[in-house]
Amino acid sequence: FIKETLEGVNPADISALLHEFDTEDSKYVIDLLPSETRAEIINDLDEDIRERFLKVFQPNEITEIVNHLDSDDAVDILNELPIKEREEVIASLDNEEKEANILDLLRYEEDVAGGLMAKELIKANVNWSVVQCIEEIRRQAENVQKLYSVYVVDDNDRLLGRVSLKRIILAGDKTQIADIYEPELISVETYMSEEEVAQVMRKYDLEAVPVVNMQGKLLGRITIDDVVDVITEQAEEERQIMSGISGDVEEDDSVWMLTKARLPWLVIGVVGGFISAMLIGVFEDELLRITAIAFFIPLIQATGGNVGIQSSSIVVQSLANPSAFSDSLAKRLVKVFMVAALNGAVLAVLVYGGNVISGGSQNLAVVVSIALFGVVLIASFMGTITPLILNKFGFNPALASGPFITTTNDLLGLAIYFYTVHLML
Amino acid sequence: FIKETLEGVNPADISALLHEFDTEDSKYVIDLLPSETRAEIINDLDEDIRERFLKVFQPNEITEIVNHLDSDDAVDILNELPIKEREEVIASLDNEEKEANILDLLRYEEDVAGGLMAKELIKANVNWSVVQCIEEIRRQAENVQKLYSVYVVDDNDRLLGRVSLKRIILAGDKTQIADIYEPELISVETYMSEEEVAQVMRKYDLEAVPVVNMQGKLLGRITIDDVVDVITEQAEEERQIMSGISGDVEEDDSVWMLTKARLPWLVIGVVGGFISAMLIGVFEDELLRITAIAFFIPLIQATGGNVGIQSSSIVVQSLANPSAFSDSLAKRLVKVFMVAALNGAVLAVLVYGGNVISGGSQNLAVVVSIALFGVVLIASFMGTITPLILNKFGFNPALASGPFITTTNDLLGLAIYFYTVHLML
Ligand SMILES: [Mg+2]
Ligand SMILES: [Mg+2]
Ligand SMILES: [Mg+2]
Ligand SMILES: [Mg+2]
Ligand SMILES: [Mg+2]
Ligand SMILES: [Mg+2]
Ligand SMILES: [Mg+2]
Ligand SMILES: [Mg+2]
Ligand SMILES: [Mg+2]
Ligand SMILES: [Mg+2]
Ligand SMILES: [Mg+2]
Ligand SMILES: [Mg+2]
Ligand SMILES: [Mg+2]
Repeated sequence: FIKETLEGVNPADISALLHEFDTEDSKYVIDLLPSETRAEIINDLDEDIRERFLKVFQPNEITEIVNHLDSDDAVDILNELPIKEREEVIASLDNEEKEANILDLLRYEEDVAGGLMAKELIKANVNWSVVQCIEEIRRQAENVQKLYSVYVVDDNDRLLGRVSLKRIILAGDKTQIADIYEPELISVETYMSEEEVAQVMRKYDLEAVPVVNMQGKLLGRITIDDVVDVITEQAEEERQIMSGISGDVEEDDSVWMLTKARLPWLVIGVVGGFISAMLIGVFEDELLRITAIAFFIPLIQATGGNVGIQSSSIVVQSLANPSAFSDSLAKRLVKVFMVAALNGAVLAVLVYGGNVISGGSQNLAVVVSIALFGVVLIASFMGTITPLILNKFGFNPALASGPFITTTNDLLGLAIYFYTVHLML
Repeated sequence: FIKETLEGVNPADISALLHEFDTEDSKYVIDLLPSETRAEIINDLDEDIRERFLKVFQPNEITEIVNHLDSDDAVDILNELPIKEREEVIASLDNEEKEANILDLLRYEEDVAGGLMAKELIKANVNWSVVQCIEEIRRQAENVQKLYSVYVVDDNDRLLGRVSLKRIILAGDKTQIADIYEPELISVETYMSEEEVAQVMRKYDLEAVPVVNMQGKLLGRITIDDVVDVITEQAEEERQIMSGISGDVEEDDSVWMLTKARLPWLVIGVVGGFISAMLIGVFEDELLRITAIAFFIPLIQATGGNVGIQSSSIVVQSLANPSAFSDSLAKRLVKVFMVAALNGAVLAVLVYGGNVISGGSQNLAVVVSIALFGVVLIASFMGTITPLILNKFGFNPALASGPFITTTNDLLGLAIYFYTVHLML
């Protein structure tokens, strides 16, 4: 019954369903399905769920799955296996070409072009005719599922260009590939980061991009579906970093997983809160003298926090969309200070006005406004350079909007406020 | 000289360069280029820069640009023109079919499937042979630039399925389309939101998706390059909302634009800060009695803020990746409370321990820990329901992580803290 119901259903839909069931039941269901569908389902699962799944499969079952997948997906699954099992599976592959492809791909890091590419593609020698090219398409038809264009190479396998399928359909059989191929072709090199690959494909509206080595030899191709996944994952990662959640957790993960992902960042905040308490404690005399100082702690901190996150976010945006010429650091900082001074001045006047109207101490009103202006300037500066520094050292610049950096900024703002109070009141 | 240098350069690269120059100079440069390249360059520009550009073009120049673009891009440009100029341009189009296509597309909202689709596609009647289909491809070759597959329709233009170009290449000339087409085809309806379209294309790894009306009639197709732009824009929008920046500003916008985008959110924070000041003022007697109460204001607020943003972020993530079955609201809230109680208990114990070690007042230590626990619970609850409510009423749920909601939560946390102090000390 289950088998009949699931027949004709898209594997991606079945994967979505399986996320909701436990591993044993799911295994029972997918064992009923044809092995090709089974392979696609396993391929479509989220990484964390798939790892749990793969544990209940025998090596020979995994071999069967790997046999049905494109080389890029096969390698992703192999990378999730314990090393012993991985070698068992690779050794048991019948298809020599597949084995060679997989061994080649295992060499690349997951997050560079080499780790995204699949070896399956169709290439034609520049000296072929269209008929020879069609023969090659026929020969490889089973292996290359998504076919957009045929890559044209010279005798040394160096990439020369491409012919679209449309052109092949419209060309006469005797036409030479050399006469119809487009020579100017965008390609990426194996070591390019996945972010750069995504930028290239987005900018030039590509559905697939060929991957070459430093000698220009064609090694594989990256398809847009995998890059769409990269872009989506990056957005999710950024959201998690900005909100202080570590690891790839979702709402349906266990209470324990969710706590583990959140607690460390909360502890950082609490430690920052403790240091704040000690800092305020240093100025206890001032507080005893003028209690109203305490009233403005939230205002100073909220504004410093908001300005810092705004500034970081603008830099993160720039880093994500690098433009052709970027201004020098000095020029950027001058602009940051101008924006900060403008914002800070408006807010300071606003706060001063508010304090006068509400009839508080005139002196305190002046001090709060001056401290606020200072906090806006410093928070803008910190918010701007922190993501630049993080990026320079290979960290995700979005960390600058996360709890660790904002906790540090909170402390800085508080220090500025109390020091101003200490000096002026 | 400029003309020669730019020959053979990809239009997307020229667009990237033009972002750095002023409009008059750029117009001079692109007027030197062939009109097709010019059209692609204008099409590739960012929306805000393009609007500035279009102002220096004459209606007849815009007509020429529109003539070279796919219907989806043509409509995007027309939507940026003043209504009078728009009608002038439409009236001056020579090509009847193009005009009809554009008039049809102008009816759709920008952010639904109908607003993303292009009318250019190749469709074959199910009763045709492969030769007839190839004839149609030849006839439309100029119009349909990116060709992935041919859509198969019945006599009433209702979508039946598709034939991939690979299949057409491998089929004999006399083969009937009816014998080779794939009947099960994923399509979207015109009113589907762009988010849903993106989800469908991502889930099923599509490079193009056909758009149908409620009767199943084929109206157009959406290509992945435009959906990649949708996904990227959504991520940018979410980043801006989370950091309290309104409008689509970038680092290279003017000081004035940047200030305008940031100041309103900062003012919200300042207003919140004022209300906080008044709230603390209400408890001035407590503060006069025990100054140390003030020490823990930052700790309470930072923790409440962090917990709230974490909770919202997890809900936003779920809303972005809806799963097949989602738990009921009650079940989700129970889980939220369990995670919150666990986190809150650990933090409360930590803070109590810290206070005891640092040798502060025993009573205050108990009160701070109890208030902290309460703040974690409430912030979790608010952080969870706020994005759900925002989403229900059609707002972007990421607003829950932005300054307006976090300011409100800050106030709530402060109120809980001082009320606990008031009750217990
Ligand atoms: Mg990654
Ligand atoms: Mg991989
Ligand atoms: Mg694009
Ligand atoms: Mg792939
Ligand atoms: Mg895939
Ligand atoms: Mg997970
Ligand atoms: Mg939109
Ligand atoms: Mg549109
Ligand atoms: Mg996918
Ligand atoms: Mg388009
Ligand atoms: Mg485009
Ligand atoms: Mg802009
Ligand atoms: Mg905060």
